[in-house]
Amino acid sequence: MLEKLKEAVYAANIDLVTKGIVIYTWGNVSGIDREKGVIVIKPSGIEYNCMSPEDMVVVDLKTGKKVEGKWNPSSDTPTHLELYRKYMNIGGIVHTHSTNAVAFAQAGLSILALGTTHADYFYGNIPCTRELRKDEVDDAYEINTGKVIIETIEQLKFDPMSIPGIVVKNHGPFTWGENPADAVYKAVVMEKIAEMNIKTLMLNPDARIAKYLLDKHYCRKHGENAYYGQK
Amino acid sequence: MLEKLKEAVYAANIDLVTKGIVIYTWGNVSGIDREKGVIVIKPSGIEYNCMSPEDMVVVDLKTGKKVEGKWNPSSDTPTHLELYRKYMNIGGIVHTHSTNAVAFAQAGLSILALGTTHADYFYGNIPCTRELRKDEVDDAYEINTGKVIIETIEQLKFDPMSIPGIVVKNHGPFTWGENPADAVYKAVVMEKIAEMNIKTLMLNPDARIAKYLLDKHYCRKHGENAYYGQK
Amino acid sequence: MLEKLKEAVYAANIDLVTKGIVIYTWGNVSGIDREKGVIVIKPSGIEYNCMSPEDMVVVDLKTGKKVEGKWNPSSDTPTHLELYRKYMNIGGIVHTHSTNAVAFAQAGLSILALGTTHADYFYGNIPCTRELRKDEVDDAYEINTGKVIIETIEQLKFDPMSIPGIVVKNHGPFTWGENPADAVYKAVVMEKIAEMNIKTLMLNPDARIAKYLLDKHYCRKHGENAYYGQK
Amino acid sequence: MLEKLKEAVYAANIDLVTKGIVIYTWGNVSGIDREKGVIVIKPSGIEYNCMSPEDMVVVDLKTGKKVEGKWNPSSDTPTHLELYRKYMNIGGIVHTHSTNAVAFAQAGLSILALGTTHADYFYGNIPCTRELRKDEVDDAYEINTGKVIIETIEQLKFDPMSIPGIVVKNHGPFTWGENPADAVYKAVVMEKIAEMNIKTLMLNPDARIAKYLLDKHYCRKHGENAYYGQK
Repeated sequence: MLEKLKEAVYAANIDLVTKGIVIYTWGNVSGIDREKGVIVIKPSGIEYNCMSPEDMVVVDLKTGKKVEGKWNPSSDTPTHLELYRKYMNIGGIVHTHSTNAVAFAQAGLSILALGTTHADYFYGNIPCTRELRKDEVDDAYEINTGKVIIETIEQLKFDPMSIPGIVVKNHGPFTWGENPADAVYKAVVMEKIAEMNIKTLMLNPDARIAKYLLDKHYCRKHGENAYYGQK
Repeated sequence: MLEKLKEAVYAANIDLVTKGIVIYTWGNVSGIDREKGVIVIKPSGIEYNCMSPEDMVVVDLKTGKKVEGKWNPSSDTPTHLELYRKYMNIGGIVHTHSTNAVAFAQAGLSILALGTTHADYFYGNIPCTRELRKDEVDDAYEINTGKVIIETIEQLKFDPMSIPGIVVKNHGPFTWGENPADAVYKAVVMEKIAEMNIKTLMLNPDARIAKYLLDKHYCRKHGENAYYGQK
Repeated sequence: MLEKLKEAVYAANIDLVTKGIVIYTWGNVSGIDREKGVIVIKPSGIEYNCMSPEDMVVVDLKTGKKVEGKWNPSSDTPTHLELYRKYMNIGGIVHTHSTNAVAFAQAGLSILALGTTHADYFYGNIPCTRELRKDEVDDAYEINTGKVIIETIEQLKFDPMSIPGIVVKNHGPFTWGENPADAVYKAVVMEKIAEMNIKTLMLNPDARIAKYLLDKHYCRKHGENAYYGQK
Repeated sequence: MLEKLKEAVYAANIDLVTKGIVIYTWGNVSGIDREKGVIVIKPSGIEYNCMSPEDMVVVDLKTGKKVEGKWNPSSDTPTHLELYRKYMNIGGIVHTHSTNAVAFAQAGLSILALGTTHADYFYGNIPCTRELRKDEVDDAYEINTGKVIIETIEQLKFDPMSIPGIVVKNHGPFTWGENPADAVYKAVVMEKIAEMNIKTLMLNPDARIAKYLLDKHYCRKHGENAYYGQK
């Protein structure tokens, strides 16, 4: 069952390596079948070049239990599940340790919107979560990672589909999208704009973008008045 | 019609990827046939590896209307047209989001001439435009992007063929040249000297080049007294 | 004799180049056969693409004398031997001049634990040794390099298998592991987290990680309560 | 005539591209036949992938006139000639615009010896020349570039074979060696240690190496007491 989704999740995981944002086992991608109420996710600790689509693991959305697959699912599965349960529009999720986005996570800083490259994909600053407390780390750490992402989104009151990613403090980036491939696309973009931002801030620590330019570029590509591309 | 120009524009677009300054759809190249009064430009939002020369779009220089092609032209087409209309020597234009040049655009800083690598291609600082006002962004944004490039060139009173590029504030680099391939060449050079500049400024924020060395290197390669190469 | 170990040491040396952390002859890997009391190590000054497994050199653990092989062993062999003699769990050792780890060595700074990428592999800061004194450099330099690594580990009282690497002041990184391939893995990870750290410190010089998050991530992958991967 | 030297110079030029320190025509390599009193050098402005060994140009060491070849020699030929005339041990010379070495040239700073990677090849700081005066640039610029390199070496009183390279202010690196391939080797090493240095100085602006460690590493690889490699 779920052959197409397994293939899509597998291909998205491989794409992380092809795009150069993941080495070894430093990333995972999942996708969801909301009708069947299951997600498909990378197995834990398996190297990308040793996997095939049938190695992907199927996990029940509600219970978090493995439904199918010979391997353990990614240890980050509970984080993915929290996000899928809360936000119905998310179809794919990615977690990586890509260098420049991790730098912001480790610095505890948001990736500020500084230019149109950012605005084309993320409608505002990409926030950094607060630090997890000791009790949140000691127990149910991966669930609490999902919860602190949700807490950040809810406190800042933004639509997660308009800012499809976040950095978790001292950890790294999570991105999401309509499907696994789209979530990978956002992960690659976030890594690139994080690199641009570090260089920009070295040149000018006070760099900022005008709100109306952010609006323009985001809405040029998204929503009913979009006119970028072939729609 | 225009088979050769389509081929040249197509090849120049692909070269952006080959040279490593563009990912996904983050760049566009155009070329002009001044006799026929048309430009040929990349279609909007199409990935490079899915294109062939016949996917290039033909647009009328005066009206800005599509003359031929199954796709919408790049959303940046009005910017290209403004530049072609103003400067008769421009034969090709490139826009990218290359990392280091974008860093200067986001920082709102000119790429200062600091060395002979710069002077071999750009006869002076590569300016950063002023920020566009809200009204300029809300209406006719792409046209106004072209206008602010022209405004910058005219205010600084330089020949756009001697400094064949600019960074648009909070946006990114535009370069131009005698033809599409030449404009790509300038885009790659600008990205490289932007990288050199960031590293130079980290080592020495007061770095500068003597005007006479700038003169020497530019004139060694350009103009009637040039003696570089095989002329 | 020792065909399998020679093959493993050879493959690990080649992997340094494949992973992009070594150019020319800027690295060496060794492995140990504790039963036979010998180590196998890269020959000195031989380029990686000119080697084959039979070029690896066999050296006696106790005496440090060459036992087999047509070449001189790596000039760093005495450093490797010191570490193998002191720490019985070390099965492979790597020394490189990888760029970002060398930057910390040259700066005389430890690679602080700042995030979970670090914590997944190194259970605490990766220390930088003190500077060697003139007498330690003039005589028995390579032995003293090993001794200062051991001195650092003993003074800081950590288990070298839980922090499997160090940077030697003004020199570069050494890593170790259960076998040659594992030591290379740690060398690649150290280089990557060193790059992350430099960028993090540029964004926020006060960046730190909570001890309980360090504990969590290290213990998620190591020890009896590990739940990462397929164990 | 000179088939072997042409082949060596050609291969060394190509190696600049393979090693990733040159794009377009941003570098040139020469070699010398001291018995015949001629040098062989890259033609000016020709792209690397369009060349073959017979395109190399032969120039008379004394007169600087072209002796053989269908192309103009590199415009930097007079600089190469100055160095060959002054220093009898130089067998090959390289000039590039490699990014990190150029950053030091543009910053007007020497590449300080900060670690053993540097000490393995360069026995002390790699100096940056003074700025050329207007009269030196306006007339006989390329000859004066050679002269200011020699002036720097003579004032600092070092053997150019022990510090086989320099950065020319606002311009870029020159390196030399026993033959063309050796000069390329030094150019690649200088670029790498320049990158290491920038990162080191960002972490610690006061980083320095002890003189006795510099001595040790240089003499471990060079001179009669060398014990690195297979000698």
